[in-house]
Amino acid sequence: MKALVYQGPGNKEWVEKEKPGIQKPTDVIVKITKTTICGTDLHILKGDVPAVTEGRTLGHEGVGIVEEVGSAVANFKPGDAVLISCVTSCGKCANCKRGLYAHCEDGGWILGHLIDGTQAEYVRIPHGDNSLYPIPEGADEEALVMLSDIMPTGFEIGVQYGHVKPGDTIAIVGAGPVGMSVLLTAQFYSPGKIVMIDMDPARLALARQFGATDTIQVGAEDAVARIMEMTDGKGVDVAIEAVGVPATFDTCQKIVAAGGNIANVGVHGTPVELHIEELWIKNINISMGLVNTNTTPMLLKTLGNGKVDPSKLVTHRFKLDEMMEAYEIFGNAAREKAMKVILSA
Amino acid sequence: MKALVYQGPGNKEWVEKEKPGIQKPTDVIVKITKTTICGTDLHILKGDVPAVTEGRTLGHEGVGIVEEVGSAVANFKPGDAVLISCVTSCGKCANCKRGLYAHCEDGGWILGHLIDGTQAEYVRIPHGDNSLYPIPEGADEEALVMLSDIMPTGFEIGVQYGHVKPGDTIAIVGAGPVGMSVLLTAQFYSPGKIVMIDMDPARLALARQFGATDTIQVGAEDAVARIMEMTDGKGVDVAIEAVGVPATFDTCQKIVAAGGNIANVGVHGTPVELHIEELWIKNINISMGLVNTNTTPMLLKTLGNGKVDPSKLVTHRFKLDEMMEAYEIFGNAAREKAMKVILSA
Repeated sequence: MKALVYQGPGNKEWVEKEKPGIQKPTDVIVKITKTTICGTDLHILKGDVPAVTEGRTLGHEGVGIVEEVGSAVANFKPGDAVLISCVTSCGKCANCKRGLYAHCEDGGWILGHLIDGTQAEYVRIPHGDNSLYPIPEGADEEALVMLSDIMPTGFEIGVQYGHVKPGDTIAIVGAGPVGMSVLLTAQFYSPGKIVMIDMDPARLALARQFGATDTIQVGAEDAVARIMEMTDGKGVDVAIEAVGVPATFDTCQKIVAAGGNIANVGVHGTPVELHIEELWIKNINISMGLVNTNTTPMLLKTLGNGKVDPSKLVTHRFKLDEMMEAYEIFGNAAREKAMKVILSA
Repeated sequence: MKALVYQGPGNKEWVEKEKPGIQKPTDVIVKITKTTICGTDLHILKGDVPAVTEGRTLGHEGVGIVEEVGSAVANFKPGDAVLISCVTSCGKCANCKRGLYAHCEDGGWILGHLIDGTQAEYVRIPHGDNSLYPIPEGADEEALVMLSDIMPTGFEIGVQYGHVKPGDTIAIVGAGPVGMSVLLTAQFYSPGKIVMIDMDPARLALARQFGATDTIQVGAEDAVARIMEMTDGKGVDVAIEAVGVPATFDTCQKIVAAGGNIANVGVHGTPVELHIEELWIKNINISMGLVNTNTTPMLLKTLGNGKVDPSKLVTHRFKLDEMMEAYEIFGNAAREKAMKVILSA
């Protein structure tokens, strides 16, 4: 089979590789029908995630058809259409039992990280019963790929951890795919104002189409001053960081109101300066984390009854063996006006 | 009357001052029977709180007898014994209506800060109906003084914001009066282990008497290594910062387990480095804030039925006009083995 393989910082190849087989009774082998590329894959390629070793197949998102199941798998059989979760979970360790699947003692984020991932013709999914979801009949496969990672990440780590409430004024800093997922899922809870903050006017225009009530273009406008003006100097109820650099975290610190929340969704590579000398008295809460994907069943229902349409995040489409071209486009997302790319078998 | 007055950084005096009178219909004038000194008063004296101007009477804790009430006061009458809350709240602004009394739009922490405080023979309490509590018959007045600030601060900002749960392993960094209040009130929720971390062996010995299951002496032991050893390398469920300096906040970052909480209680004067490059993936929560005192009625009940005895925090007793000596002792707390001092009229 063919797979996108990490070959050390800056290098990747679309190469022939051995098709994965069942290793444990709980494994499921899935033939990929659609997959995508994540900002995290670009981080890995830069060498930012040293746990990823040379030869690793990347990718942690996708849908497919069950090819083979281990003897202990109860929920799936060959031929079933499945959604692959970016988080693998055993369902029975102490962390799984409290819903902290991101920290499953025999899983967590391992796909395309510690084991071979989904940017390939076939993938082995450990703990298949807990890490795959049946695809509802008639579901849009492109929309479903957004449910592998970015939609639950935006919803759980941005909206739920941020405690978005009806009527709230919320600000999302970063209009990339995850920031857009926050934007789409925040609307479940009817915030009063959703302000999208980004440098890219094209992404801000898209954010307005997706439901942002206000947008602020960093570089052209002073984001902090605009937010203060909008909120009578009080700041926002929830500030959501969806980039992962010190400057955007800092914006969140400056715009959060007393009693508010900073929900960090971005993946950071360096420490940030926390202005606790100003914030200690403000009764704020700062949350962060890796998605647990425990809202995936809920998100599947919202998809099924038309409450959200994440397929609109897809801007570019490729065949699976055009993987290298897809990386080229996604790696130059601003220039190419790319949000999410879909690769189909 | 006599009052302890701030005279600019490093300077204070116990001086004759005009007795306060009713200024607004919601005011109550209280004759102080017992008051105390807070670490925050020492911060003010160092010049760390520039909003405090020369001539200000310090103090935000105490009990007393109602001397006079404004025409709109309904809950109190002259002669009533009252507990003074460190936070003044109108009860009717948007923040008060959501229980965020710390950020009352016509109050918050103003006593001994923006208006004259309790280290005096008499004090004016604005919004008396919301900012005073009737003293239950037979209550220990020294214990009650601990309910003005440190007990609700430890309980709300440490225990409640930290989400302490039965069986949890919690660590309290800093065995001062507020850290001890966290220690006492954490026990309401039956954590499995309570580890007190401090430099002072005398305070650690006291912490063991007050219910700490383990103590770690910073300087003599490596706190982070000890915690990791105790928790199979996982860290603590809740790390509570009760000092207010970068080093203790850093300890909390290093000892918190995945899925855990850092509850910052300390008052900070400088920024801290937040290791978000390591913490983003750990699903942790960082809380901080000024006490709302919305648990004061609950704490009064725990006092009434013997569930907690904060009077054991009192180590030194003075007459009100020995205020300068009391400051001398409290300002050298480690040398004097002082925890809380009580000044009685």
